[in-house]
Amino acid sequence: MARRASESGGGQRRSTIREVAARAGVSVATVSRILSGDYPAAPATRKRVMRAVEELDYVANAHARALAGTSAKSIAIVLNSVVSPHYAHVAQGVEAQTAAEGRLCLIGTTGGDPERELAMVRFMREQHTEAVILVGNVVADERYHERMSRYAHALAAIGSRLVLCGRPPLGPDVPAVVVEYDNVGGAHSATSHLLSAGHERILCLGSRPGYTTAEGRVAGYRRALAAHRVPHDPALEVEGMMLWHEGYRMMKERLATGRRDFTAVFALNDLIAGGAVRALTENGLKVPDDVSVVGFDDLQPSLDLDLTTVHMSHEEIGRTAVRLALEHEARGGTPPHVMIGTHLVIRSSVRPREVS
Amino acid sequence: MARRASESGGGQRRSTIREVAARAGVSVATVSRILSGDYPAAPATRKRVMRAVEELDYVANAHARALAGTSAKSIAIVLNSVVSPHYAHVAQGVEAQTAAEGRLCLIGTTGGDPERELAMVRFMREQHTEAVILVGNVVADERYHERMSRYAHALAAIGSRLVLCGRPPLGPDVPAVVVEYDNVGGAHSATSHLLSAGHERILCLGSRPGYTTAEGRVAGYRRALAAHRVPHDPALEVEGMMLWHEGYRMMKERLATGRRDFTAVFALNDLIAGGAVRALTENGLKVPDDVSVVGFDDLQPSLDLDLTTVHMSHEEIGRTAVRLALEHEARGGTPPHVMIGTHLVIRSSVRPREVS
Repeated sequence: MARRASESGGGQRRSTIREVAARAGVSVATVSRILSGDYPAAPATRKRVMRAVEELDYVANAHARALAGTSAKSIAIVLNSVVSPHYAHVAQGVEAQTAAEGRLCLIGTTGGDPERELAMVRFMREQHTEAVILVGNVVADERYHERMSRYAHALAAIGSRLVLCGRPPLGPDVPAVVVEYDNVGGAHSATSHLLSAGHERILCLGSRPGYTTAEGRVAGYRRALAAHRVPHDPALEVEGMMLWHEGYRMMKERLATGRRDFTAVFALNDLIAGGAVRALTENGLKVPDDVSVVGFDDLQPSLDLDLTTVHMSHEEIGRTAVRLALEHEARGGTPPHVMIGTHLVIRSSVRPREVS
Repeated sequence: MARRASESGGGQRRSTIREVAARAGVSVATVSRILSGDYPAAPATRKRVMRAVEELDYVANAHARALAGTSAKSIAIVLNSVVSPHYAHVAQGVEAQTAAEGRLCLIGTTGGDPERELAMVRFMREQHTEAVILVGNVVADERYHERMSRYAHALAAIGSRLVLCGRPPLGPDVPAVVVEYDNVGGAHSATSHLLSAGHERILCLGSRPGYTTAEGRVAGYRRALAAHRVPHDPALEVEGMMLWHEGYRMMKERLATGRRDFTAVFALNDLIAGGAVRALTENGLKVPDDVSVVGFDDLQPSLDLDLTTVHMSHEEIGRTAVRLALEHEARGGTPPHVMIGTHLVIRSSVRPREVS
């Protein structure tokens, strides 16, 4: 119910936008638009609304005041997408640590497009965010190096910083905090586990020349073969992206060749493993009875598959990125560079090879 | 190599920060910090650096200029977390449509905390974002209603707008765009499918009184039972959150009671279904031979489980939220309210009940 300011004396209840609308005989939406100034209203309507506002002592800013912010400190994370479980969990770690430090966390996705990445970093820089964390599998070529260098210096120039997560460092003249994870070591463990179980012909699904994450894991695979003195057959490395449907495609195509010249599969992530297992199942092959499978990530899909896989602490990676960024902000000096380790989680998707 | 401006005439190559550092005999990081002004350097060092800058005609802003932004238009999406596949896919849809419309998409997560949500909405409002899209299962009580109303009006007052995604509308005086999805209808289809296969004792996993998403799905489950004239047994509704581990817990606890008084399971999302299937398997029960299972979402987990489930177009929901927000921005009028439909995807986790 509407009351005039003079009628109710001190401590009156504040009028609502609904009361203004009722008094002016228009909808709430109309009042809102007229007050925000972007609605070409008939002069008579506008006059009625403004008189109602005055009579009711309505303060449009009551709502706005409740939301008047102070410039919140923020930390930004920029990634390819949030759909990939790995990225989502890293973002979750960034978010959790950021909240614990009393900051806002902004997430931006780029779809892997350097133009979108640039736009996002620009935007974040304008917000004077304390750190921009870039996550994601990249092609680490000359243009990439140049782009990262530009970001790093531009952020440093305003007292912010670049954090590279899951990407290799860029040399001493790019001031960036670096949080790497041990792709090579993890892949080495996974492959060694299969080799120790007697598997010598191991399909490697998901190689992707030029991409740092895939290349690290393929390198670990090859080193394990070498360490066990097992010949490396490049035909056992199949190219594809780190997606369930790609794992399905890669395995289906391999099985279609009729060449059953492998007894185990090292999938470069759990999503690929999932798709590959589906393709094997559709071909009447059982895991691990007929084919052993190891994945990489230890995320949700590995639970449903009961998959032996390489564990990565995705959320810890995100938390570490934030901690190191804020420590560097406080102390200065050379930006820190850490490597987060991995370990193998043994489940039920591997069994020793039967030597017939 | 460094050249003086005067030496190279027009079109000289711009000096790099590395050259300034070399000439001044300090590190790149030192130059960066001195130029950004927040490093208490020894006067002699500062002097050397500034002279090098002058001699090399170094423009620190070369980097900054490359990143000098224009105020980018943006759309914000605020959700509980990005780890839940549903939220991640909705965010992906928002992101894709936003990019298609030439805007930046900012994602903020709240962990379900109303304080963090308020801080995020404030921040986005200060950026004059064109729309703030709120996604997520909520307890739709009085305080929630009040909070949403405040957001909606505060955003409208600056020409922006609130978009509620996956949440019911709030009445005519809350100017918000609403994109709902048919939880009731989807759950009705899922339950009817089981009833049509002869299952009358259907466990419903994941109820959560007060939460709009869960309540919608339980309502659909109950309506289907009523439509088939099957008695509703409240003891068949098990409370829990929409997580794999919760599905595992709910099923394990139920099986531990020894009461095998159900022949089918309706899991209120695919994550719950995954956990429940694991618990069934550990108890020696096969799906669908012993127990039929239907999920909800049709996301990644349902692929690995080959699960019959309710399909929702998560990305389409996100895209629609953006499209409607921008249409409303262009045309004004009553904020639109749409309901996105669902349909059942038949896979291999249901079989007709054997009537012994």
